Amino acid sequence: MKKNQSFIKKENQNLILELIQNYDLITRPKLARLADMSPTTVSRIVSFLIEEGLIKETNQYTTGVGRKATYLALNPDSLMSIGVELDERHVRYGIFDFLGKAIVTEETGKELGEAPESLVMKLNEVITRLIQENQIDKNKITGVCVGLPGLVNHKDGNVIKSAQLVWENVPLLRILEEQLEFPVLIDNELNLRAYAERLFIKNKTSHSMVVIGFGSGVGSALMIGDQIYRGKLNSAGEIGHTIVDPNGILCTCGNFGCLQTCIAESFLVQEASKKSNVQSLHEISSAAEKGHKWAMNILNRAITYAAITVNSCVCMNNPDRVILTGKMIEQFPHIRDRILQESRNKIWAPLSDSTSIEISQLGEQGVVLGASMYSQREYINHLSIEKELV
Amino acid sequence: MKKNQSFIKKENQNLILELIQNYDLITRPKLARLADMSPTTVSRIVSFLIEEGLIKETNQYTTGVGRKATYLALNPDSLMSIGVELDERHVRYGIFDFLGKAIVTEETGKELGEAPESLVMKLNEVITRLIQENQIDKNKITGVCVGLPGLVNHKDGNVIKSAQLVWENVPLLRILEEQLEFPVLIDNELNLRAYAERLFIKNKTSHSMVVIGFGSGVGSALMIGDQIYRGKLNSAGEIGHTIVDPNGILCTCGNFGCLQTCIAESFLVQEASKKSNVQSLHEISSAAEKGHKWAMNILNRAITYAAITVNSCVCMNNPDRVILTGKMIEQFPHIRDRILQESRNKIWAPLSDSTSIEISQLGEQGVVLGASMYSQREYINHLSIEKELV
Repeated sequence: MKKNQSFIKKENQNLILELIQNYDLITRPKLARLADMSPTTVSRIVSFLIEEGLIKETNQYTTGVGRKATYLALNPDSLMSIGVELDERHVRYGIFDFLGKAIVTEETGKELGEAPESLVMKLNEVITRLIQENQIDKNKITGVCVGLPGLVNHKDGNVIKSAQLVWENVPLLRILEEQLEFPVLIDNELNLRAYAERLFIKNKTSHSMVVIGFGSGVGSALMIGDQIYRGKLNSAGEIGHTIVDPNGILCTCGNFGCLQTCIAESFLVQEASKKSNVQSLHEISSAAEKGHKWAMNILNRAITYAAITVNSCVCMNNPDRVILTGKMIEQFPHIRDRILQESRNKIWAPLSDSTSIEISQLGEQGVVLGASMYSQREYINHLSIEKELV
Repeated sequence: MKKNQSFIKKENQNLILELIQNYDLITRPKLARLADMSPTTVSRIVSFLIEEGLIKETNQYTTGVGRKATYLALNPDSLMSIGVELDERHVRYGIFDFLGKAIVTEETGKELGEAPESLVMKLNEVITRLIQENQIDKNKITGVCVGLPGLVNHKDGNVIKSAQLVWENVPLLRILEEQLEFPVLIDNELNLRAYAERLFIKNKTSHSMVVIGFGSGVGSALMIGDQIYRGKLNSAGEIGHTIVDPNGILCTCGNFGCLQTCIAESFLVQEASKKSNVQSLHEISSAAEKGHKWAMNILNRAITYAAITVNSCVCMNNPDRVILTGKMIEQFPHIRDRILQESRNKIWAPLSDSTSIEISQLGEQGVVLGASMYSQREYINHLSIEKELV
């Protein structure tokens, strides 16, 4: 409840770091101007960040005048962190530096419904190997952050339910902490992706941003400024169980016509199996391209509901950006383009000019990148609080 | 972007005021404990608030010990403010003291689609009369806040669109400022009601709260802590134009099957008019009670979509409280009870235990009360910034 001194310190420090990141090279006076802070405050924060090795000074000639000025830049090698994404059948890994540049990424297969203990064991092996192979200094690693689909309590570290992983009430954080030698965080994958989307867009004046994922499930995440809006149980944005057709088919949750029944891959495959022996969205898409009516109908309906979903998020949250992501967007350009077009057609007219609907530029790296950068931010936040110097 | 010293001052001062309001009588040490602030900070804030006349000290015997202690309480008469609600056919007025107690309330009729200038002139007359009749000291009035349905830019003071008032691009704030002698604010009615709901619930530990209004239109508002979440254009929560039936009837916005077409009074009347010469929800409700099938069907569908709406807001925003309000809830107990029951049935199971669905206790006074209290808060916030004392 209380906003105290260390809250401000943290916020101001994050603002300074964000400005240095945005400008690549920036002087102290310009920082003070952009952040609307006193030169003294900026100097104090900058000294602390230099001391911690997070940023560095470089002397460069300013254009024209021929006078040297001292610029500040992030120190790319000062921090590293590990992002992990758990999916139905894959695990993605990424080690990123302080600039968000990938040092190494990797993808491994996993079994459907694999037990958490065995999965975490493999995860530890891969991480250990990646660190060795890339000769990474362990002391620079801020931690590991794991993103996964479903209801994840990021505070107590329990996975309440993940349909895709076939997990219920799994104390994932504890299992990870037992096996990994780094600080660990867990979170919903879309929250982490949204964090990355916000961090790496060029124009950060964005008021609020909704990231919508159309893939094996369907979900969304809301960023308000640079904060993830989590809701009471970290489950804000669980649009998969909004009811879009009260006369629709039965959902796993027991309601009729939840959004996911019209749009998530497993449900599309289930519908399609009545007509053909298909196993994936790829096969449905191929069948549609070959002119099979059932496949075209399934995709048409999914595209309509995707556009309806975009409009619902816009009406509900009134963001200035909507970013679309997920398998359906990343792997199927035809579907993606039709979703974009139909979304722009369906968006409520009074909000259409002030809302830009975009495709994620981060693609399949989005979650591991977001996880990684989130680990770094948590590390830096604790740093400033522990030392109470800034 | 920058969180500065005056931001903290404002936040901490609001927290202290809120605690004093909650406890009716409270000591400085208890304030410090509950607010997690140092005794020095609490004393400084309290001194400022006493100096400004907002709170007062009273000496009372503490129970048992027989020792006198100094308690603090809000000073009810220190501030007053005027809330106004504009509706299709009514204007509601309320003058409230610093505790939110009504000094006087009044309701007048208005013409459908009445022009803003003539409406504001009448509004000024009523306000002037209410002040005179109740012998109110004008110097204590912090201002007038006007709530109305529709898309309202609370910053520049323009009403972008209000279907209920039949207004488009009306510079309402300017018109009000030209005629009224008090500081003026305007806002969306549901935002103001949500502000009041948050202010007058007993247990303020609420993380976030969604207020949903089912009436002449349908809308919602999200409170995150004590802040209204507004979105980019102050239009977050405009659920009336989420599409709930792509094969439904044409909405005024040009899309098929917007939520409001299934649930807002004017659309229900429009549907009903195909079968009977009804003019209002009251007549539809009476017809349903007499067993007319068309009326029962219209209400059944509206109730189903109301419950779907509650679930959608819960999935999207993951609040810990949902508060239902509006004509359909306040004036039709049978409909209200069925909406409550069906909402609890439809709410996504993993969130049902952590979300309480409640009926607004503020009833028809909700908007004018919220408007009034919001005017007071804005006044106090400016006070603390201007004086920079706290």
